[in-house]
Amino acid sequence: MLELSKNEFLIAEKIKNLKNNSGTHSPSINTFTEHIPEVKVKVDACFLSNPYATDLFMNYFHEELIDGGALRKYLEFYPSQNGVIAGILSKSLHVSEKNIFIGNGAIEVIQSVIHNFVKKKIIINIPTFSSYYEFCKKGVEIIYNKLDKGSDFKIDIDSYIKFVKNEKPDCVVIINPNNPDGGYIKRDDLLKIVTELNFVENIIIDESFVHFAFEDPELNKISTAEFFSSNKNLIIIKSMSKDFGIAGIRSGYGIMHEDRVRYLLSNGYLWNSNGLSEYFFNLYSRISFQSEYEIVRKQYISETQSFFNDLKGVQNIKVYDSKANFALVELLNDISAKNLVIKLLLSDNIYLRNLDDKIGLDGEFVRVASRNKEENRYIIDCLKKHLDD
Amino acid sequence: MLELSKNEFLIAEKIKNLKNNSGTHSPSINTFTEHIPEVKVKVDACFLSNPYATDLFMNYFHEELIDGGALRKYLEFYPSQNGVIAGILSKSLHVSEKNIFIGNGAIEVIQSVIHNFVKKKIIINIPTFSSYYEFCKKGVEIIYNKLDKGSDFKIDIDSYIKFVKNEKPDCVVIINPNNPDGGYIKRDDLLKIVTELNFVENIIIDESFVHFAFEDPELNKISTAEFFSSNKNLIIIKSMSKDFGIAGIRSGYGIMHEDRVRYLLSNGYLWNSNGLSEYFFNLYSRISFQSEYEIVRKQYISETQSFFNDLKGVQNIKVYDSKANFALVELLNDISAKNLVIKLLLSDNIYLRNLDDKIGLDGEFVRVASRNKEENRYIIDCLKKHLDD
Repeated sequence: MLELSKNEFLIAEKIKNLKNNSGTHSPSINTFTEHIPEVKVKVDACFLSNPYATDLFMNYFHEELIDGGALRKYLEFYPSQNGVIAGILSKSLHVSEKNIFIGNGAIEVIQSVIHNFVKKKIIINIPTFSSYYEFCKKGVEIIYNKLDKGSDFKIDIDSYIKFVKNEKPDCVVIINPNNPDGGYIKRDDLLKIVTELNFVENIIIDESFVHFAFEDPELNKISTAEFFSSNKNLIIIKSMSKDFGIAGIRSGYGIMHEDRVRYLLSNGYLWNSNGLSEYFFNLYSRISFQSEYEIVRKQYISETQSFFNDLKGVQNIKVYDSKANFALVELLNDISAKNLVIKLLLSDNIYLRNLDDKIGLDGEFVRVASRNKEENRYIIDCLKKHLDD
Repeated sequence: MLELSKNEFLIAEKIKNLKNNSGTHSPSINTFTEHIPEVKVKVDACFLSNPYATDLFMNYFHEELIDGGALRKYLEFYPSQNGVIAGILSKSLHVSEKNIFIGNGAIEVIQSVIHNFVKKKIIINIPTFSSYYEFCKKGVEIIYNKLDKGSDFKIDIDSYIKFVKNEKPDCVVIINPNNPDGGYIKRDDLLKIVTELNFVENIIIDESFVHFAFEDPELNKISTAEFFSSNKNLIIIKSMSKDFGIAGIRSGYGIMHEDRVRYLLSNGYLWNSNGLSEYFFNLYSRISFQSEYEIVRKQYISETQSFFNDLKGVQNIKVYDSKANFALVELLNDISAKNLVIKLLLSDNIYLRNLDDKIGLDGEFVRVASRNKEENRYIIDCLKKHLDD
């Protein structure tokens, strides 16, 4: 099934080379289309982002910055220092500004935390976002806790706690929902983990996808920021790229002990925000923006969950339950992930994430991002065309 | 002369507190006006930037991103990786992309270089840009080479070389033109320094202000990038904030040995550019943009040098020769820098940089940035009002 033609094979080789030059991450869509111009991308289902939130942000950008005339100010002048922007964010997070570190994207928060605070041994659940182990400095022992495919990559809370107590690391990393499977640990279970593991110096919770998760039918927002007040060894990391659809602006933050924030700020992260990121954090702190955002967040979650249901109707694949904005899809019956990605790209201009480079995944896997309603419908139709018997 | 009233004194105290919270740098203009709303800033002569270049950039921004419709792409999607943007810049710099490290502002290049490559002993000429010594890690010995006020802070090339040979550091830092005095080392002298000091592992040349310097009457552009091919221990650092007037975008780069670039990229600086910075570097590499930029660069240099001449006509100050876009001004006859800054701010809404926190400066000093022609004229008039007998 899904054998490649000679032409498809040649383009597959080009993509492989481009990917080898990008490390363990997908090349950006710009890089991609520039280097392989014969490939058109109509639907980027590699890209994890709420398109309705981008619409909302662009409306504000046009109204306030372009029509309102404030744009030049944000591009010409130096943005405020880290602590000033933390002060703006503090009001919405209900966390003291002393505990907030603003990052040039969450990736900078991950880098700075892993480089500066992890000294001996780190436990990382796999499969996961690769930067967490790639950024570890020499001398740090990395223990991979392989999530069980047989249990749909779900963490068994009690055995995880036992495992960590036995290993005695100085850092654990929990991404919730996890990337690339979308598995979600409920708030109460997470609190249990945090409480039981209070001896671990650095408990990193990456909640970059948490705005897509929900525990009640009203899809109310969840955050573990409130755990911080009684667990000062928590480091909560959050990207704004996905939920707010603004990856190009590079906004992220970390919540952590004030000594840690102070240490990072005195080591060179004082001016790491750009003008538009400062504008975004200002916008984020406004009640009117938040209430409009809630509408597009819930709309996107509903459409995303309905998309995952439709995905489950496609034959020859297994779709894992996800509370993120992407689904982990296992290809059954000897279908190759590489071939599916190439077929969809060349015949339908859909770009999927091939997960053949993820450690901890045995089998053929792709990750499918939820896009807007129409694009999601198109993805389903094309997948059915290639995969249904 | 220039005694403060009670009200002026109270506002001076507020500014002092704000400054204490900003470390050894001026608070941004946003932070400033937000915290002390009774102070209006009409002319920010603290801010080192070519306003005509901002005009030029804004024209392109409006035409290509807003009217041309490309804006959303740059805000919504992930920017390219460091090496891809280095590839774009490579063509204009005539330096291999393997030797280019793109920074989230030059400050990130400074931080990453000082943190990662300086191990034992660094020689820093003072007065200077404070981040160079502030970012030094514990255990690195900092040797301050105090520039001689009696020689107008000019470096004596031969004694400098002798001093370095004697001290045997693993790093020297040369900012050219230097901040805050604007002193400029000619290209041939700099080449002599670089050649004689080839035993120093890290020779940092920060040429963030070099677009404002000139050696011929045509004001042609100077760069030491060409020195790199025969001096691989050079690390050339360049901000784009000043000459291109886009501090809010955070663009900078370093030219350095490819092993160093590779080391930094494998340690977490892979995705440190934002979308607008990528757009800017694309623009920068275009011949049409470069030729328009040359016009506004030369216009600004001419006006700046003429402004410095006018400054020299103000009484009770000494203006040091500068080939940057700011002038170091010493206040004579017991005039206090603090009082002058407050007077100008409150009576004329001009914001000057008080240099009382700069190590290596003995006396009362302010730094005056060159702005547009009309603003420069206004600065001169107001200074005369306060300072002429």
